[in-house]
Amino acid sequence: MGLLAPARAGASASTGDAAWVRALLDAEAALARAQARAGTVPAAAAAEITRVAAGLRPDPGALALRALETGNPVVPLLAELRAALDPAVAGHVHRGATSQDIVDTATMLVAHRALEPVLAALDRTLAALAGLAGRYRDTPMPARTLGQRAVPTTFGLKAAGWLLGCLDAREELDRARRALPVQLGGAAGTLAAPAGPELLPLYAAELGLAEPILPWHTRRAPVLRLGAALAETSGALGKLATDVIWLAQTEVGEVAEPAAPGRGGSSIMAHKRNPVLSVRVRSAALQVPAYVSVLAASAVGEHERPVGAWHAEWQPLRETLRLVAGAADAAAELTGGMVVHPDRMLAGLAGLDGTTGAAAELTDRALAHYQAHYHRRKP
Amino acid sequence: MGLLAPARAGASASTGDAAWVRALLDAEAALARAQARAGTVPAAAAAEITRVAAGLRPDPGALALRALETGNPVVPLLAELRAALDPAVAGHVHRGATSQDIVDTATMLVAHRALEPVLAALDRTLAALAGLAGRYRDTPMPARTLGQRAVPTTFGLKAAGWLLGCLDAREELDRARRALPVQLGGAAGTLAAPAGPELLPLYAAELGLAEPILPWHTRRAPVLRLGAALAETSGALGKLATDVIWLAQTEVGEVAEPAAPGRGGSSIMAHKRNPVLSVRVRSAALQVPAYVSVLAASAVGEHERPVGAWHAEWQPLRETLRLVAGAADAAAELTGGMVVHPDRMLAGLAGLDGTTGAAAELTDRALAHYQAHYHRRKP
Amino acid sequence: MGLLAPARAGASASTGDAAWVRALLDAEAALARAQARAGTVPAAAAAEITRVAAGLRPDPGALALRALETGNPVVPLLAELRAALDPAVAGHVHRGATSQDIVDTATMLVAHRALEPVLAALDRTLAALAGLAGRYRDTPMPARTLGQRAVPTTFGLKAAGWLLGCLDAREELDRARRALPVQLGGAAGTLAAPAGPELLPLYAAELGLAEPILPWHTRRAPVLRLGAALAETSGALGKLATDVIWLAQTEVGEVAEPAAPGRGGSSIMAHKRNPVLSVRVRSAALQVPAYVSVLAASAVGEHERPVGAWHAEWQPLRETLRLVAGAADAAAELTGGMVVHPDRMLAGLAGLDGTTGAAAELTDRALAHYQAHYHRRKP
Amino acid sequence: MGLLAPARAGASASTGDAAWVRALLDAEAALARAQARAGTVPAAAAAEITRVAAGLRPDPGALALRALETGNPVVPLLAELRAALDPAVAGHVHRGATSQDIVDTATMLVAHRALEPVLAALDRTLAALAGLAGRYRDTPMPARTLGQRAVPTTFGLKAAGWLLGCLDAREELDRARRALPVQLGGAAGTLAAPAGPELLPLYAAELGLAEPILPWHTRRAPVLRLGAALAETSGALGKLATDVIWLAQTEVGEVAEPAAPGRGGSSIMAHKRNPVLSVRVRSAALQVPAYVSVLAASAVGEHERPVGAWHAEWQPLRETLRLVAGAADAAAELTGGMVVHPDRMLAGLAGLDGTTGAAAELTDRALAHYQAHYHRRKP
Repeated sequence: MGLLAPARAGASASTGDAAWVRALLDAEAALARAQARAGTVPAAAAAEITRVAAGLRPDPGALALRALETGNPVVPLLAELRAALDPAVAGHVHRGATSQDIVDTATMLVAHRALEPVLAALDRTLAALAGLAGRYRDTPMPARTLGQRAVPTTFGLKAAGWLLGCLDAREELDRARRALPVQLGGAAGTLAAPAGPELLPLYAAELGLAEPILPWHTRRAPVLRLGAALAETSGALGKLATDVIWLAQTEVGEVAEPAAPGRGGSSIMAHKRNPVLSVRVRSAALQVPAYVSVLAASAVGEHERPVGAWHAEWQPLRETLRLVAGAADAAAELTGGMVVHPDRMLAGLAGLDGTTGAAAELTDRALAHYQAHYHRRKP
Repeated sequence: MGLLAPARAGASASTGDAAWVRALLDAEAALARAQARAGTVPAAAAAEITRVAAGLRPDPGALALRALETGNPVVPLLAELRAALDPAVAGHVHRGATSQDIVDTATMLVAHRALEPVLAALDRTLAALAGLAGRYRDTPMPARTLGQRAVPTTFGLKAAGWLLGCLDAREELDRARRALPVQLGGAAGTLAAPAGPELLPLYAAELGLAEPILPWHTRRAPVLRLGAALAETSGALGKLATDVIWLAQTEVGEVAEPAAPGRGGSSIMAHKRNPVLSVRVRSAALQVPAYVSVLAASAVGEHERPVGAWHAEWQPLRETLRLVAGAADAAAELTGGMVVHPDRMLAGLAGLDGTTGAAAELTDRALAHYQAHYHRRKP
Repeated sequence: MGLLAPARAGASASTGDAAWVRALLDAEAALARAQARAGTVPAAAAAEITRVAAGLRPDPGALALRALETGNPVVPLLAELRAALDPAVAGHVHRGATSQDIVDTATMLVAHRALEPVLAALDRTLAALAGLAGRYRDTPMPARTLGQRAVPTTFGLKAAGWLLGCLDAREELDRARRALPVQLGGAAGTLAAPAGPELLPLYAAELGLAEPILPWHTRRAPVLRLGAALAETSGALGKLATDVIWLAQTEVGEVAEPAAPGRGGSSIMAHKRNPVLSVRVRSAALQVPAYVSVLAASAVGEHERPVGAWHAEWQPLRETLRLVAGAADAAAELTGGMVVHPDRMLAGLAGLDGTTGAAAELTDRALAHYQAHYHRRKP
Repeated sequence: MGLLAPARAGASASTGDAAWVRALLDAEAALARAQARAGTVPAAAAAEITRVAAGLRPDPGALALRALETGNPVVPLLAELRAALDPAVAGHVHRGATSQDIVDTATMLVAHRALEPVLAALDRTLAALAGLAGRYRDTPMPARTLGQRAVPTTFGLKAAGWLLGCLDAREELDRARRALPVQLGGAAGTLAAPAGPELLPLYAAELGLAEPILPWHTRRAPVLRLGAALAETSGALGKLATDVIWLAQTEVGEVAEPAAPGRGGSSIMAHKRNPVLSVRVRSAALQVPAYVSVLAASAVGEHERPVGAWHAEWQPLRETLRLVAGAADAAAELTGGMVVHPDRMLAGLAGLDGTTGAAAELTDRALAHYQAHYHRRKP
C-alpha cells in the first residue's frame, strides 16, 4: 500500500484499512441478522445494528493503536459500535462470537469483494490475449531457449500460452473465491451459544460466503487455497510480463508496451521508454511467493487459537491481494494495447532452420479451450 | 534425503535418484510406444526400446556429473540408452522431443508414483482420526487460546478438526495428482515433428498421466498446484503434530505419542520420551512452505525455456515430495497409536466456566462429511 | 502498516509514506549541497533547494498514483519540487542523478533514522534482561527439551541466553546501520556528470551515511546486510517472546507479561489475559524471514537496473523495518515488566534429577560480556 | 544432492552424508581429547577414542533409518562407536554432552571444511574479474536499464561491479566461517558435568572452531550469519551469471561462456550453445533465499531445545552449502574463460548519446580496493 507499492485507486481502496473496517462492521451486522433469523436476537435489534454499523466510520489509525493492547481490532471496534447503539440493542451485538470469528469473516469478505474486479481484469486480459493469439496465429518468430534463438514458433502460440496460463489462474481464483467461508465458532470453536451449527448456513447466506463444516480457527485451508490461487495468478501474469520485458529489449524489439502520455519516462533520459506496466506485474510476481509462504507456514498454529501464527497472516494476505489486484489491472492494460512488430520477428528468423510445426494447430486448441470455458460460464 | 532428512525406506526410495532415472527411461520408452501407435515409429522398435530401457541401470552419480556440462541429465542418459540399442533402433529414441519433455514427464511420473503411498498413509490417518473423534466425542477438555486455558471443548472435536484438515488436504492432493500431465512439445513447444498434437493423448495414455492442452514448458500450473496441495498436506499434518507437541508437554500430559522400543530416547536422559513422530512431521511443515515458494517463483521464467527458473524447481519439488511422504508416514503411526488421557483433560477443566457447547454435534458433522467422502470414493 | 499490522505511533511514522517523502526530498537537497561543495552548483541555489525541499509536503497518495506511470515516485516528486523553485534554481536540482540514486539514498536514510529508536529499545531490553539474569542468577527451574521437562537450569541462565541473543543482534544491526551508503551513479552508474567520484564522500557527509566504493544499483549487499541484521533481531526477540508464551501457559505459569489496563482482554472471556506483547513480537518473527528472502532474491537483477527486482525490494524492506520496530518496542515493555514466579519454577523441579550445573557461572560470563560491550560503546 | 542438483564431485563430497558422519565422529573424538586436557578423561582413552573414531565407517543410510526413532543420528552413531571400543574406554565417550552438542558442532565443522574450497573458488573468480576489469577498463558498451539501452558504460566497470560484489561476499563468508563455534552445553545447556565452561576453549581449540560465550542450542546467530553470508555469496554470483545470460543472448552477443567439448549441447539442436555455467549459478541463486529463510525462521524455537525448529535447519543448510559450492565452482570457470566481444559492444552504442563518464576512474577505485584487500590478507 502507498508510495512503495503503488496500485491504482481501486486496488488500494479494496484492500485498505477502510475496506477492512467496513467488512468487520458488516460481519457483526450480518451475525445479528443471522441470529434474528434463528430467533435468538430480536429482528428489530438486528435491523438497528445493521443500520448503525452501516453508518459508522471509525478511524482505522485509532483502532490500530488500541488493537496493540487487545491483540486485534475487534475489541475496540465493538466498543465503538456498542457506544453508538441503544444499550438494549448493544447487548445483541457479537453474541456468541469471538474476535477471530469477526476478523476471519471480514477477511473473507474483503477477499471476496477485492477479487471481483480482479476477475474482471483477468477477463479483459483473456479477451485481449485471445485476440492476439487469433490475429498472430500464423506470424512466425524465433523461439528462444536458455536465452538463445532456437527454432521458429509463432507469436500466436506464445499468446496462446499466456492465454492458457491466465485462464487456468482465473478458474483457480474463481474456485477459491466461491469457497471463501464465514467463520463462526465462539471462544473455543464449539459454537457454544446462543445458537449452534444451525447458525452457520444462515450466517453464510447473509454474507454471500460459503458455509464451513466446522469452524476453521486453526484449520487454514481457506486461506492457503486463496493464497495458492493468488500465487498462480501472479505467476501467470508474471510470466506474460517477463516475456514482454525480454521481447521489448532494444536489441529484440518484437513487442512494445502501449504508449501513454508521460508513461515510462526516465528522470534523465528523454529518449527512453521503460516497460512500466510489465515492471509492475513482474515486481508483484517476485514478492507474492514469499508472502504466500507465510500463509502456508501459519497453518501449523497450536491449540484452538495460535499465539502469533494467526496474526502473522493478516498483512501478507492483504499485500498479496493488493499486489495481484495491481498486477491484474496492469496486465489488462498491457495486453489490451500491446504493440507487435511482425517484421522484427521475421527478421529474427534469419539463419534458423525448421518450421513452426504444429504451432497454429496448438493455438487453435487453446482458443477452442478458451471459447468452451467462456461459454460454459455464460448464463 | 539421507542423514539430515531421515525418512522411511519407502519415502526415500520413491523420490531418490534411482526413481528419477527409472522415470526418465520410462518416459523415453512411452514416447516411442506412443509414436508407434501414431505410426511414426515401428512397433518392433518401440518394443525393443521399452525392453532395453526397462533393463538399463545407469549410475545416477555418473549421470549427475555429466549433466553438469549439458544442463540436465537427459543428454547423457540418452547416450547410454542409444548405446545399448541396435543403431537402427536407436534412431527411433527421443524423436521430436526435447530434454525438458522427458524431465518434466519423468517428474510428473515420480510424483504420481510417490503420492500413491502418501494417499494411502493419509487414508490410515483419516481412519485413525475418525476413530478418535468418535471415541472421544463426549470427552471434555480445556480449549486453549493464545496459550491460555479458555473454555471447555471436547477431544472429539479436536480430533474432528484434525480429520477435516487432513481430509481436505487429501482431496486436494488427489486432485493435483490426477491432473499431473505429460510434457511434450519439442524444442520450442511447437510439436514440430514427427507427430503433432495427436501424439498428446497417446503419450498421456501410455503413462497414465493427464493430457495437456498445450506444452507447458513455461506454464507451470501443474507444478504449482502440486506444490500447493503438498503444502496444504504438510500444513494439515503439521497442525496435528503441533497440537500433540503442546498437549504432550510434561505439564499438560493430555496425550502421548505411541511408545515403541528405542523410540524417543535421549542420548543422556534415560527417563525422557521425546515426541519424535511429531517432531518429524512438524520439522517437515517448517520447511515445505519455503520450498514451495521456490516453485511459485519459478513460474515466471522467460521465453520458451527459462535460464535457471526451470532448473531451480527440481530439488525443492523433490524435497517437498520426500518431506510430505515422511510426514504422512509418521502421522499415520502417530494417530494410529495415540495415547489419550481423559483424566488429565478433565483435571484441566477445574475452574473453567462454560459448557462444551455444540462440540458433539460439530464432531458428528465432521464424521458425516468424512463418511460421505469415503463412500463417494469407494467403487 | 495500519489496521492489520499495528505498531506504536513511532514505528508507524518512521516507516510511513511521509517519512519516505521526507527522505526523498532530503536526498535531493543534500545532493545539491554536495555539488555546491564540489563547485558545480552555486551555493545559493543549494541553500534555496534545501529550504524549499524542507518546506514541501507533497501528498504521498497523489505521488503514488503518478508513480504508476513512471515506475517510481521520483519523477512526480521532482516535478513538484521544481515547480516550487525559481526556474533558474530548479535547473540545479537532481543534476547527474537518476531516480534510483534518490530512492536508494532515501531508503538508506529512512532505515538509518528508523533504526535509532530500535537500537534504543534494544538497549532498554538489554538492560532489563541483564537485570533479570542477575536477579535470578540462582533461581532454579526446569529446562525443557522437545517439550518435556529434562533437567534443572536457572531462570538467570535463560535470561542470559536472551540477553546474548539480543546483544548479538544489536551489534549486527548497529554494524549494518553504520554501513548504510548513499547511492549516486547517474543513469548508468558511471557518475557521468557533472561531478565524478569526488562527489561520493561529499554526498555521504551531507547525509551522515557511508561512502560506497562504486554505485550499487545492482550490487545489493547494503540491502541484504540490513535485511540479515533485521532478521537476526527479529529472531532474537522472537525467541524471547516464544519462551514467554510457553512459560506463560496456564499449566506452566512460571512467567507472565506485565499487566496494563485493558491489555490482553478477550472479546468474550473476561477472566483471560492474553500475552499480547509476545504475540506481537512472535507474529513479526514469523513474517520477517519471508520478507527478507525477497530482498535476497532481488540481488540477482540484470544489467544496470533490473526490470522488477529493484521495485520488489521496497515494500518488504519497509515492512521488515516496521515489524522489527514494533517488536523491539514490545520486547522492551515485555522484558521491563516481566513477572517471574520462582515458586512455580521450583515446583516444576519435583522429580527431576540433576543439578543446575554451571548455570550461574555461565550467567556471569554472559553478564561480563554484556558489561564489556556496554562500556566499549560508551564515550 | 544427486541427479537433480548436480555439482562437481568436490561440492557433493564436502556436504554429503559421509562428510557429516565423519564430522560427527570427529566431534566426539575432539570432545574426549578436550576432556583429557581438562583432566576428566584419561589421555589414553581419548587417544583410543580418536583412533577408533577415525577408522569407523558407519553406513549413513542405516544411521538415517535408526535416526527415525531417536530424532537425530547421534544416538545410533554412539552405539556403533561404543561397540567398537573397549567397554572401559567406551564409558569416556560423549561425557556430559547431548546429541545437539555433537550435531551442531559437526555441522559447524562441515561448514568450515566445505567453505575452504568455496573461498578458493571465489579467489579464482576475483582474480579473473580483476583481470577483466583491467583489460576492458576502456571498452565502451551500452548500459541497459529496465531492459533498454540507456547510455554508454564500459565493460571494465561492469566487471568491477561483479568484482566488488564477489569481494564483499567473500569477506562476509570468511567472517562467518571464522566465527563458527563449537557447541557444548549438555542436556540443558548448563554444562552440568563433568567439566564446566573451562571446557569450551579446549574443545574449540581441538577443532579449530570458535569458542562461544554460552551454549547456543536455541540462540542460532551462528547459523543465521552463515546463512546470510551464503545468501550474499549466491546473490553476488547470481548477479554476475544473470548479466552473462542477458549479454549472451543471440541478439546481444557481447559475451559468451567458455566453450568446452560437449558443453551446452542441446538434446536436439546441434547449433545451439547453452550458457550452462550461468544456468547452474543462477539456478542456485533462485533457491538459496528460500532455504535461508527456513534458517531464519528456525531461530524462534522454544525452551532449551525446540520441537522441530532445530531439525528443520539441517537439510536447508546443507542444500545451501552445496548450492553455493557448486555456484562458486561454476563461476570460477565462467569468469576464468569468459569470451568478450568488444566489437559487438561498440556496435551496440550506435545511436546512444553520452560518454562513459567516470567509468574508468570507478573501475580503478574498485581495483585498488581489491588490491588493498588482497594484500591485507596475505601474510
